[in-house]
Formats: sequence, structure tokens, C-alpha cells
Amino acid sequence: MDILARRLAVARGDEPADVVVRGGRVLSVFTGEWLEADIAVADGWIAGLGEYDGREVVDASGRYVVPGFIDAHMHLESTKLLPDEFARLVLPLGTTAVVLDPHELANVLGTDGVHWLLDACDGLPLDFYFMASSSIPASAFESPRRPLLSGDLESLLRRRRVLGLAEMMNFPGVINADPAELQKLQLAEGVHIDGHAPGVMGRSLNAYAAAGIRSDHEALTEDEGRERLRKGMWLLIREASMARNLRALLPLVREFGTNRIAFCTDDRDPEDIAENGHINGMVREAVAAGLAPEDAIVLATINPATWHRLWHLGAIAPGYQADLLVLGDLERFEPELTLKHGRPIDETQKPEVPEWVKHSVRNRPVSADDFRVFASGMVRVIGLVPDQVVTELIVQEPEDELATIAVVERHLGTGRIGLGLVTRSGLQRGALASTVSHDAHNIIVIGKSTDDMAQAVTRLGELGGGIVVVDGGTVTAELPLPVAGLLADAPLAEVIRRSLECNDAARALGWSGATPFLTLSFLGLSVIPSLKITDRGLVDVDRFEIVPLNV
Amino acid sequence: MDILARRLAVARGDEPADVVVRGGRVLSVFTGEWLEADIAVADGWIAGLGEYDGREVVDASGRYVVPGFIDAHMHLESTKLLPDEFARLVLPLGTTAVVLDPHELANVLGTDGVHWLLDACDGLPLDFYFMASSSIPASAFESPRRPLLSGDLESLLRRRRVLGLAEMMNFPGVINADPAELQKLQLAEGVHIDGHAPGVMGRSLNAYAAAGIRSDHEALTEDEGRERLRKGMWLLIREASMARNLRALLPLVREFGTNRIAFCTDDRDPEDIAENGHINGMVREAVAAGLAPEDAIVLATINPATWHRLWHLGAIAPGYQADLLVLGDLERFEPELTLKHGRPIDETQKPEVPEWVKHSVRNRPVSADDFRVFASGMVRVIGLVPDQVVTELIVQEPEDELATIAVVERHLGTGRIGLGLVTRSGLQRGALASTVSHDAHNIIVIGKSTDDMAQAVTRLGELGGGIVVVDGGTVTAELPLPVAGLLADAPLAEVIRRSLECNDAARALGWSGATPFLTLSFLGLSVIPSLKITDRGLVDVDRFEIVPLNV
Repeated sequence: MDILARRLAVARGDEPADVVVRGGRVLSVFTGEWLEADIAVADGWIAGLGEYDGREVVDASGRYVVPGFIDAHMHLESTKLLPDEFARLVLPLGTTAVVLDPHELANVLGTDGVHWLLDACDGLPLDFYFMASSSIPASAFESPRRPLLSGDLESLLRRRRVLGLAEMMNFPGVINADPAELQKLQLAEGVHIDGHAPGVMGRSLNAYAAAGIRSDHEALTEDEGRERLRKGMWLLIREASMARNLRALLPLVREFGTNRIAFCTDDRDPEDIAENGHINGMVREAVAAGLAPEDAIVLATINPATWHRLWHLGAIAPGYQADLLVLGDLERFEPELTLKHGRPIDETQKPEVPEWVKHSVRNRPVSADDFRVFASGMVRVIGLVPDQVVTELIVQEPEDELATIAVVERHLGTGRIGLGLVTRSGLQRGALASTVSHDAHNIIVIGKSTDDMAQAVTRLGELGGGIVVVDGGTVTAELPLPVAGLLADAPLAEVIRRSLECNDAARALGWSGATPFLTLSFLGLSVIPSLKITDRGLVDVDRFEIVPLNV
Repeated sequence: MDILARRLAVARGDEPADVVVRGGRVLSVFTGEWLEADIAVADGWIAGLGEYDGREVVDASGRYVVPGFIDAHMHLESTKLLPDEFARLVLPLGTTAVVLDPHELANVLGTDGVHWLLDACDGLPLDFYFMASSSIPASAFESPRRPLLSGDLESLLRRRRVLGLAEMMNFPGVINADPAELQKLQLAEGVHIDGHAPGVMGRSLNAYAAAGIRSDHEALTEDEGRERLRKGMWLLIREASMARNLRALLPLVREFGTNRIAFCTDDRDPEDIAENGHINGMVREAVAAGLAPEDAIVLATINPATWHRLWHLGAIAPGYQADLLVLGDLERFEPELTLKHGRPIDETQKPEVPEWVKHSVRNRPVSADDFRVFASGMVRVIGLVPDQVVTELIVQEPEDELATIAVVERHLGTGRIGLGLVTRSGLQRGALASTVSHDAHNIIVIGKSTDDMAQAVTRLGELGGGIVVVDGGTVTAELPLPVAGLLADAPLAEVIRRSLECNDAARALGWSGATPFLTLSFLGLSVIPSLKITDRGLVDVDRFEIVPLNV
């Protein structure tokens, strides 16, 4: 029998369901009510709510049954995990669908990389949807392997499971009607477009919204969030490892209700997820802050589904995909059971990773001389704000406290190196280096020893990418990230262990913040204030131009 | 300059707007707030909210500015007006977009008729969107000119401005997984589907929703509405001329908020619109019944737009189409000004009506003998409930009070005539006839004189369709409806005048209800209980079969 015909037969009660979830209190995300109803599942889809019999029965008595959680916007690469390993991590936490912007991978591997990731996600028990990465390079000061042009986006937008255009990060370009940006926007007609407009307000925000961009996850304050809602933009509340906006924005839910607000994690590192959870952690924190559990769940289920037009997800109702969480309470939000397509999660197969995604590090060989800085008089120095993505632009005289920083082009072997100085890192000796360096993901290296810097960069080439700490000629810790220099080909526990070892090793060199490599990874991102560095040199982000070291 | 680039320049304030609406209190349908802001319009689209200058200024000081109203579901044919005349009627009432199901026309003229209507609506100042009529014939007992098959629907769904599949009226077919109905549903994957499920509850409603049908406008009671919302269906609150559900369903808005609820008129006759308004009348009545004006407006603007995925309509925000109403108060909802694309409405051109849509009446000639009923013993009689669409099935002996009713096939000239008897019409003499006779729109005629019945049917053939009243061999009133036998080719005032004359003439014959021809038009609709009549005979709707006159 046709699947739909069978679903209707189960709904009518003429055939037994495959699975019946019985005895629970079932949340209607539409009315906010807890219904006492069985849930009948046929072929992975919900056939009916009411009284039903089934071949298998899941006893949910005394429990709450809610839809699986959906992450409205995230970058898989921040978790450093391959999609199958990510699925193993977050499915037990209740996340059953995610919407990815794979722009880190696309900076390194182009559309080929995105097509590979799409294929690698196919058939996994977690539903991965994609947005087509709209902003590669993030700015003209960055050097990805190649830019993604509107033709690339056109091809990506035609793929199944690609929902729209990912965050339009070049907000000045959009606001000022840069023809290349307008071309991308017009390409996306009929699909939807995520925004990224930190601090943009007033007429500039009008222009950004008037371009057809209808979401933003960069609102930090109530005022910013309120103005976005008023102007018809969805407010995606972000709780990333380094940018936590939930508490600041929750009052808007109390003020206006849940309409057009959804949760996302944006960038979460694996330790953070292992420790604090994923979307379930946001729901927990929202409820702890006083939000009604029903409202918090709406922000994590039907609302992200609605924004992304995933009409089959986010609710427990006939005709929806049977992604269900059985919860023991409405405080911890740690599912006792995650049902995907109405079934407990099977063993997740490990897909084979092709060789070509593992050989992305192609830097020209370096030596200590490459990292020698020639400073005279006053210099521009990157003022580090530990555990933040912003920096300060400081003009000062050179002094011993400063560490050297460099970005080494690693996609085409051009030998291009940008050099600079950093204050307040705490570093006393050695070097840290990483191929995770937003957004172009060239090699970023910081150190007090040019020898150690050269050795760290060389080691990254040998690993095919990753994170390394070198102290006096010895590699004291390393995390290999062979897939595009961004993702580990190892299980979660090993990734976390090695990641923590690297952090410890960095702190042993004197690093003063909690998250050395996360902080380091944003020092190359040329679209966040104030002084950043790329392989093309120092970038004064506020003036949006390359500036020399010497003033 | 490119239109989008110009819109952004206006948003930034770098170019003057075409029109600025200044000084009003502007409703944000997203937050429910009244904002004190100018609205800047560029090329018919909203560029920004804030402080703006423009080449033209609309002074809205002391006024309320809200988005144009949208009718989520209606049949144009019930208004008896051509689309241009309908636009002239409802634009001043604040309706700026409608979603039509043209199924009356499609019963008579097939997909050709729908394509003609789509073209005739193009370029009018009112935005007409269509749903592809899914249920032609309404049942196997009815005789449209031809059925609409799934291939027809496939072609319609591919047209611009066709949004999805119109109300799936064959709800028993859907629930029981009739292959023809499932084929239509599967065709509509990726678009959305309107429902029509009167009285359906419980497991049957589960099946109907599980088929992917996510709206219904047939809920009459709070219980029906609540269950539809819980099961993930949009509740389209209908206020039709003969089915007024607003007051009964408003408590659900108070209970659950405005989420997934929208207004529609379904079937409104022209007198009703002229007297009581259109969607604005629903807003007025909702507010009079105690609903907050902001909520009532949401149900009439952003919500119908959201259900129908009309992402550019229903709000006053950057990037939305500038369809705006200037209101003097929040009680009467009679716009002082309707702005379409930011401009007052120009003279609406009258498109030419092609000959081929005007020659749809092709009945075989009739005589009084054709209407002679041979009753013996107990007979099945249609028990009229004046001004209602339902009837009773009454078994009784023939008596003088009964009127004769007939449906004459009029699409193919087959000469097929269904005959029956009606009680409680009040008719004393003469005959009424109409080519408006849901859903197949064959000729329906009722009378006390078989001569007058024959004359009325003959007169309809001469008119090419319409409504006539004959009294003792004289036509005492008539309304020509030459377009498909459904729509007038005359101005509103004349349509209303002649329509009222027909009603008066019917009452002069003794008709006891207020709306003789509206009542008559539903006596042929074989999917509404209990005893109906088509050209194929009497239909016992509850048993869903043809039954003989004589028991």
C-alpha cells in the first residue's frame, strides 16, 4: 500500500500503528496545551492523536512528550565533528534537525566541499538542512581557496535540502546596494534569506530588511531585537560558546510573545555541547530564567521549522514527521528518549571520508625568519579581549610583553604571510597555531618564539590541519583536524580530550583566557571590530581597510 | 537604477521616497505596537519606517495606518461580479488582496475558464491569487461540463499566482484514501492545500490532516475549531452571506491568541458586501465583539498572508508591498484612503470579456411536460430550510403545498433532467430559475406552474444564463449573468438592483425566505445534507446515493 494511504488507514484506526506513544502529556505547539493523547506513528510519520493501538508501544505515562528540537542556524565546523559524530552527540540531547551554514568548509573546499557534506549528511538519523553560504570571502581582505560566486549559489540552491541563502554577512555591501550582493539576493527569490547585521539599526536596518533579508541572529540587546521584530525580521536568539545572547533577549518573548522568535546556537564548540547541551540547554536556561516551558519549547521547535519553511517538522500533529522527545520533567530538558521517525536512534553508521577532503593544507614551507617583525616607533597592536571575538586597536611603542601573530596563506601555497603584534595574550614563550581561523581558515599562529611559530606551522602541514602547541622545540599538545583543516576524523571523546590538552598546554605557556584557540580563531575574521589580521596584513575593521604595522 | 538598488537608496535616505505616509500611527503586525513613524515608499514597495522625505506626502496625522486586508478564501462567483467590478467594490473597503478558488467557473468552463479569469485579473489594482480547484465535480452525482483531473491541476499549479490546491471538498474520499484524491494531494507536494471538512472530528480529522491538508474554513463551533488548531490546521474563520461563524469562533482567539487563525468570506453576495462590507466588516464585528483591534487586524492581514505564503503582503515593514489603509478610527474600519503599491487607486479599466465565456448555456429545449412529476403513494420531499444551505429529507404523501423542482443539464445539451418535490418554499404560483446552482451550475428551476417553469428555463437560454422569475407567462424580473451563467457583465449598482428585484418578484409569488435565489442555488449541491437534487435525480446526501422520488 502507498505510504500515504497506509498513514490514513492508521489514522482512521483501520490498521494498527507501527508505534504508539501512550500515556504521555503531549504538547500542542499550536495551542500551548498538554493533551492526554496517544500518538500513532505510521512509517515514521504521525498519523493521529487520540486512542490508538500499535504493533509497538512506547510507555510515556507520567512523562511529557514534545517535538524534537531544531537549531535554526549553526555552523557544524565549530563543533569540529563530522556529521555522524555530531548526530551521536546531539540526538540524545533532543536535537533532531539542524540548519547548517557550511561556510567554513566552503572557504576551504568550495562548492565541492558543500556537495560532499550534503552527501555525507544524507541518511544520517539527524536531519541536516543547509543554507547556501552567501559570503565567501567574508571580505576582500581574506583569502579563501576561491570565492563563491552567484553561479555557485545558484547550483547550491537547486539541491534538495538547501533551503535558502545563508547569513548575508556583508551587511555594508547589502545596505549600499553592492551589485554582487544584490545579484545574490535576486538569485534567492522564492527562497528565504538569513541575515547577519551586528549593531545595524535605523535607516541602515531598513535598507537591510528592504533587501528581503528577514532574520538576524546578531541582535545583542533588547532594543536591537525589538527593532528587528518591528521591521518584520525573525529574531533568532543565539547562544553560542562565545556569544551568549539568550538572557538579554528573553524579555522580548515576555513582551511580544513567541511569534517570529527562534533559538539557534551559531557556533558551539564540542566541550560546550558536552557540558551544557545543545538547543535543550537553551530551553533549560530560558525556563530557569522564568519563561513558560511551553513557550520555550515553541522557540525550539515549530518556530525554527516555520522560519525555514520545514512544514513537516516541529510539531506533534497528524502529517508531521514523528520526531519526538520523552521528557521526565520540564526543568532539565534531558530527554529520556529521543524518537526519530518514531523509533529510538539506531547505531549511526560512520561514512567513509574521501581522501580529497583531507589534503587541504598547502602552505609554502616556513622558517623562523618569516615571523620576524620589523617595528620602529609607534605600532598598531591587536588588543586581545580574552574569550571575546572583538579586539581593540591599540597604538603603542613595541615592548617585550607583545606576542607575534601571523596568518599564513594555506590554500594555494602562495607564501603570503600577514604579520602583526598582539598585547594581553599572557603568552610567555612557545607558540600556538591553528588551521581554524575564520572565515578563510588560513593558518593563524601566535607566539613568543619565531622558531616555535615556524615549527607549529610546519606541524600543521604534516597533520593536514588542526591545532598545535609548541614549547621550546617540542609539540606539547595537538588536535588533528584532517578534514579541511576544520573537522576531526575522531570520536567526540578524543576530540574533547585533545582539545582540552591543547587549552592546558596554551595556558602552560602563559595564555591568560579560558578559550585560547577559540579566541585565536576569530583574530583573522576581518568583519568584526576592531583590529584583525589576515594573510594580506592588518585590517582596521572600523575603517574597513588594510593598515601597516608601523604608524 | 535597478528597482532594488533604488529601494535601498530610499531606505538609507540617499534618495527621496516616491511617497511618504507621514504622521500616522502605524501598526506593527509583528509586535502589536502602534509606531509613530513615516512610511517611505519606493516603486510601490515599503523602503523604510522612520523619518523620511518624499516627492509626495500623504498626511496621516491623527490617523491609524494598517496593512491592506486579505481574504484568505473566497469564491468570486458568489459576488456575481467580474474581477474589475469586484475590485471597484472592495478596494475602498480595504481589501487589497484575495485568494480565490474559481471552482464555480471551472465547473462551467474548465481550465480554459480559469486561465481566462487569471488573465482577466492580471493588471487590476486588486491582487488576485488563485488556488487550483480540486473538487470538480463535487461528487459523482453532479454534471459539470467536464471533470478537472489531476493533469488539469498540474497545469494550473504551474501558473504564477496559483498558490496551491483549493479546498479538498471530497473529505470522505480523502479520509478513505480514494486514489484519485491522493493523486491530487501528492501533486500538490511543496505547495499548500486548503481544507473543507464540515463536522469532521476525531480519527477522521486525524486522517484528513495526516493527508497534508492544513486549513479548514468549515469549523462552526469552538470545539471544532479547537480540535483543528490542536491538529496543526489553520483555522480560517468564515463569515459568508449564508454561513456566519465569526461570533462562534472568536472565543478561540481569546483562548489561544491569533496564531494560525485568519479571516475569509468564502461566499458573499454583492448586496451583503455593499451593505456589510468585506473583510473590514469582519474586523469591525470582531472588535465590536470585544477583540483587540490589533488582533483583529492581524487576522485580516499578516495571518492570511502567512498561511498562503505571500511573504510580501500583510505587513507594514521594509521589503513589503505598500498596500496601506488609512483609518480614522478603530471601530468602523472604513478606510479614509486605500493605498495600493503606495498610491491611491486609479480608475480601474474594464477588460473586454471574450465571446466564448458568454455562451455557456446549451440546454435542450424544454416544455411544460418535462416538469410533470409522477408521484404515487409516499414520496421523498426536499424539506426547505429558508436561508440555509442544508435541507431535510421528508417522506410524506403528495399534497398541494409542494412545489416542483428540476435540474436541467445545460452544458452539453443532453436533455437530462432531474425532478423532485419541495415543501415549505411558500411558493403559490409561477416559477424561479437560475443557472447559479452549486457546484455544477446546471439550470435549477422551482415552481408551481410547469408552463412557467418551462418558460423560465427557456428565458435563461436566451439570456445566456442568469436568474429569472416568471409569473403566469410573464417574466416579472431577471438578472442576466452572461459570463458562464454565473457573473454579470454589468456594474455593481445594476447587479444589486436587479438582484433585489428578483428577490421581490420571488416573494410576490409567495416565497417565504429572505434569500430565494441563494437558497435555491444550494439545492443542487450534493455534498451538503440531507436531500438534494441534480440532473441525475434526487441525492440522499447522508447515504450518498441517488434515490427515487417514490419510496
